[in-house]
Amino acid sequence: MVTTEPVAPYNSPGVPDLPFFNTGESQNASPMVSATVFGLVAVIFFGLLRMTGLVIFYESIVKKKWAVNSAFMALYAYAAVLICWVTWAYKMSFGDELLPFWGKAGPAFAQKILIKNAIVPETEHGYKDGSLETATFVFLQFVFAGVTVVILTGALLGRMNFKAWMAFVPLWLTFSYTVGAFSLWGGGFLFQWGVIDFAGGYFTHLSSGTAGFTAACWVGPRLQEDREKIPPNNVPLMLTGAGFLWLGWCGLIGGAPYAVISFSFMAVLNTNICAATSLLVWTCLDVIFSKKATVTGALQGMIAGLVCITPAAGIVQGWAAIVMGVLSGSIPWFTMMIVHEKSAMLKKVDDTLAVVHTHAVAGLLGGALTGLFADPTLCSLFLGAMNSKGAFYGDGMQFVKQIVAAAFVIAWNIVVTSIVMVVIDHFIPLKMPELQLQIGDAEVHGEELYAL
Amino acid sequence: MVTTEPVAPYNSPGVPDLPFFNTGESQNASPMVSATVFGLVAVIFFGLLRMTGLVIFYESIVKKKWAVNSAFMALYAYAAVLICWVTWAYKMSFGDELLPFWGKAGPAFAQKILIKNAIVPETEHGYKDGSLETATFVFLQFVFAGVTVVILTGALLGRMNFKAWMAFVPLWLTFSYTVGAFSLWGGGFLFQWGVIDFAGGYFTHLSSGTAGFTAACWVGPRLQEDREKIPPNNVPLMLTGAGFLWLGWCGLIGGAPYAVISFSFMAVLNTNICAATSLLVWTCLDVIFSKKATVTGALQGMIAGLVCITPAAGIVQGWAAIVMGVLSGSIPWFTMMIVHEKSAMLKKVDDTLAVVHTHAVAGLLGGALTGLFADPTLCSLFLGAMNSKGAFYGDGMQFVKQIVAAAFVIAWNIVVTSIVMVVIDHFIPLKMPELQLQIGDAEVHGEELYAL
Amino acid sequence: MVTTEPVAPYNSPGVPDLPFFNTGESQNASPMVSATVFGLVAVIFFGLLRMTGLVIFYESIVKKKWAVNSAFMALYAYAAVLICWVTWAYKMSFGDELLPFWGKAGPAFAQKILIKNAIVPETEHGYKDGSLETATFVFLQFVFAGVTVVILTGALLGRMNFKAWMAFVPLWLTFSYTVGAFSLWGGGFLFQWGVIDFAGGYFTHLSSGTAGFTAACWVGPRLQEDREKIPPNNVPLMLTGAGFLWLGWCGLIGGAPYAVISFSFMAVLNTNICAATSLLVWTCLDVIFSKKATVTGALQGMIAGLVCITPAAGIVQGWAAIVMGVLSGSIPWFTMMIVHEKSAMLKKVDDTLAVVHTHAVAGLLGGALTGLFADPTLCSLFLGAMNSKGAFYGDGMQFVKQIVAAAFVIAWNIVVTSIVMVVIDHFIPLKMPELQLQIGDAEVHGEELYAL
Repeated sequence: MVTTEPVAPYNSPGVPDLPFFNTGESQNASPMVSATVFGLVAVIFFGLLRMTGLVIFYESIVKKKWAVNSAFMALYAYAAVLICWVTWAYKMSFGDELLPFWGKAGPAFAQKILIKNAIVPETEHGYKDGSLETATFVFLQFVFAGVTVVILTGALLGRMNFKAWMAFVPLWLTFSYTVGAFSLWGGGFLFQWGVIDFAGGYFTHLSSGTAGFTAACWVGPRLQEDREKIPPNNVPLMLTGAGFLWLGWCGLIGGAPYAVISFSFMAVLNTNICAATSLLVWTCLDVIFSKKATVTGALQGMIAGLVCITPAAGIVQGWAAIVMGVLSGSIPWFTMMIVHEKSAMLKKVDDTLAVVHTHAVAGLLGGALTGLFADPTLCSLFLGAMNSKGAFYGDGMQFVKQIVAAAFVIAWNIVVTSIVMVVIDHFIPLKMPELQLQIGDAEVHGEELYAL
Repeated sequence: MVTTEPVAPYNSPGVPDLPFFNTGESQNASPMVSATVFGLVAVIFFGLLRMTGLVIFYESIVKKKWAVNSAFMALYAYAAVLICWVTWAYKMSFGDELLPFWGKAGPAFAQKILIKNAIVPETEHGYKDGSLETATFVFLQFVFAGVTVVILTGALLGRMNFKAWMAFVPLWLTFSYTVGAFSLWGGGFLFQWGVIDFAGGYFTHLSSGTAGFTAACWVGPRLQEDREKIPPNNVPLMLTGAGFLWLGWCGLIGGAPYAVISFSFMAVLNTNICAATSLLVWTCLDVIFSKKATVTGALQGMIAGLVCITPAAGIVQGWAAIVMGVLSGSIPWFTMMIVHEKSAMLKKVDDTLAVVHTHAVAGLLGGALTGLFADPTLCSLFLGAMNSKGAFYGDGMQFVKQIVAAAFVIAWNIVVTSIVMVVIDHFIPLKMPELQLQIGDAEVHGEELYAL
Repeated sequence: MVTTEPVAPYNSPGVPDLPFFNTGESQNASPMVSATVFGLVAVIFFGLLRMTGLVIFYESIVKKKWAVNSAFMALYAYAAVLICWVTWAYKMSFGDELLPFWGKAGPAFAQKILIKNAIVPETEHGYKDGSLETATFVFLQFVFAGVTVVILTGALLGRMNFKAWMAFVPLWLTFSYTVGAFSLWGGGFLFQWGVIDFAGGYFTHLSSGTAGFTAACWVGPRLQEDREKIPPNNVPLMLTGAGFLWLGWCGLIGGAPYAVISFSFMAVLNTNICAATSLLVWTCLDVIFSKKATVTGALQGMIAGLVCITPAAGIVQGWAAIVMGVLSGSIPWFTMMIVHEKSAMLKKVDDTLAVVHTHAVAGLLGGALTGLFADPTLCSLFLGAMNSKGAFYGDGMQFVKQIVAAAFVIAWNIVVTSIVMVVIDHFIPLKMPELQLQIGDAEVHGEELYAL
């Protein structure tokens, strides 16, 4: 057997009869530790499900003439993010430090790297024994990155030039997403300072919500006729997508601690509690103020709830999850239904699916509430926040940290997204030509939704 | 590090370098035991998939004017059951005994409880070492509870007042579901007596089928025009839902022993064998008696097969699964196509999706056949039935037990469901007003299915 | 406790407090080894998802009048393959050798067999300790068999007589699939010779693509009006199906090594890299040659990429996955768009969904490229190819083996599929009667797609 680098063969003395082992620095890793990774398989695949759910949700909630284009934007984003991720962006998010908020770029697709242990910021605390291979970690983090960009799509549907979108995805990923990910999860300054973001409330939702709103501002609005209050083109499929979104969310929440550990399922339970409460509260507000319980409203409440619990899922108690659900079912409802309708400025920006409310507002809310409700016992179990506690438990510092981190994420996204859009605008028009705007899918892709 | 209760830190001497450990009474639990839980992650998530599948199935099989309402009833049930479950109903089903058929109510969402070991009736036999955290167990059991209520919805679609449904869900869950669950799975008198219900044939299917039929009786029928033989509004989506239903069923079957143990996959294999046989038999009967193989018939056969194998999946041999498939593809077919058509009494009750046949009859059939075919070797591996054997292996006692348990479940559901309906009727009309009945979704929720 | 064969009870001295253990020859198996199986639960269920995805994809991509029939052909295939598989075909594929390319038939559904260790060809290398029960292995392999037959359906949609299809499925499974599976994976002569097929590039895709094309040749074409370039009947659902197909593919790729071992996730990552690249390349070619980026084209590129990486996923480097993606996005595009359009012979055969290009050509391409790019280090980790290396690493022999194996699979499928079709034709007409051909689902199954 000729190999390019020495590996222990099966049944070699050091590796007793195991059908798996770790190469790299940790050949003597306890196989028990590796066992934690097995659970990850499930959660990662379920994370992918969230992406599928998002595509289904988007294509069925938009106006019929934009369904193919919406799905295609998301599909392209998924493929393009993956290629960029393994080629340079993973290392910028989770590699060696270049600046306090940025990692050094580099490829991550060689077997030499992928089969070795992942080196994650939490390593110092407990992951030193080969429990996680880099391949698994790269893929898990790709799912987060992909989901973020697909969410962002939601603000730009129905008028963005596809070629401009093709340029936007790699640029935004490179110059904005990587910074949030490195700073908050990859060992950057916010991570070091103790900011808590359990599963991407900030670097996924606050970031995509803010960037989407900013980008929508630069692209300009849809045709007026497309902006009229239009119902989803396919409610049954929208419900299908929402179901998978919820399910996939549970997967990513469960996988966020990089292992299926003791509180993973508590995090999943909290996620469901918050989403269910938020759905019920939003529906009640709909009934009170508009006399009808609509499915579209219920799903918006559900999404706001899922977003709000994301930064907190594994480190708050069940009662806090209920409180967070009540707030996420009412505050984004208020900003969307009342504030937005009254603000001429907000109404001017055409954020197609209102991601600024369901993702940015709900994400910010969740991050702030994490600063209030973070339970010290649960924090002590979570490698990312071992010495933290929320203001409710007697120390307001965590709340301050959460707010400062949110300000950083919002500011960076507004600035960088704006720069990216201005640069692209120099080379490619940001908006589709008039004929495409009027006809939609049939003109842009030559495809109709149904051939009945 | 300040914590509200002492927990072992990572890397402490007692907990060697493991990224997970158990708090509570079992800090010295072997981490290997915990490994069994990891497989559960997958099956639990797949259990959730079954719920998504049910919602998709319902919204696409009903008449078009009721699709949104059907999905919304299911969505509300999911959210409401979850909140009730963690607040009081879990403890009534799996907590300390209050009566031989009922547990003491209490909340189950505090970290103090959730991270500790689950205490399940089987504990005496082998789960004493922290293999299962309460959070995981609460969530797994919630999935069963949620699925049960969503199935029940199927009997009431197309005319029930949404507000009456909002009251019905918590009441029925509290006064009926918890009794079945505690008696059969939570350590109650039927469990102690040795009744076998591997994965909810009785407390999920027999119970929801019976309660659904009873409730349908009290609500009264749909408009005559809605009761005409109407085809599904969306066959492709119905098939999609059925696919996820099947898949999710495999998940819950695999998770029923609370761990992925040696016969979990045998149970999954049996489930698929029975469902496939049942699908083929039902289709053949359709071809013989009505000359056409219809997809709707095939799916009804599939569901009857899935229900029938549920109480038996892990404790019967493969040949018995085939026999059960033949019977579940023919007996519910017979009661639905022949008995129902000839019985004026049955025809009067408007059980929208015929859950009395596909769930109650098939569930009862499966429970009885379990009493015939339970294999002693397999029983000895299953913690819930260690000393049992079916009549086929020489002892008729198990069959008697299965029949008695069925009688209890049926009687309790008829009585309690009736009381619940009568009480609700005092405050809220059970049926929609005439205008809603005639117009459907557009009047009830202000939403149309498609905007094409 | 009376049992038909002695098993160790829980808590017996030899089995310390574990909620699972292995019966059969390996009672003293290390439970840690069994841990590897837990990850399989996830991947197997995800494999099933691939089947659901295929059914959704097929029913929504065909002409509207054939959607029910297409779904029903796939549904029947799934059920029939399962029954045949456990009754005789599993043993023909993975049982004791009868001929160098065939196993001895026999049932595989008794508990006595299913709970024992799986005996797989790789046993000699490292699976000797009960890490895999037969039930799990039978089910995993059934998923491969089922997917293969469902893919084959794609060539025959829109005109095949349903009764002929009912006969074809068991016959083709028995006389063709089992040979490919045994020869390449079950320990047959190609396996012994060192041919590499990581996850079914040959015995799933090359085989179903070739057999589908051959069978399409014998059945004859659809009506001319059905062969006109017709768009998918339901693009949103087609995208939904494609999403699940992709996701399910990741599951089967991850499960292909029969355990979730160190390079499972590298395989999944490679799969995604290749599919994403292939999707982008195919889309670019569409834009260059037909000026429109179509979603249908993007999905064909995605499928070609998934097929191409299948035989190689776990044993090539990331850069090779990118190269393979570029080739799978262009070569099948070329054979489908250019060669097929110019060849009168190819145009005569009515391969409904062009499976000969996306499955046979892409599968053959992937198998050949495996012979070029197989990395010796990664091969040494994979039990099925421990001493192999691709031509790129200095030895052309693997490439020769891959080509010879492809020739065997192609030849066997052409011959056996033809014989099966001729035999069936003797008893049942292969094509539907004219009236069914003209009317479609409503005539064949009495069902319409939508009741709107």
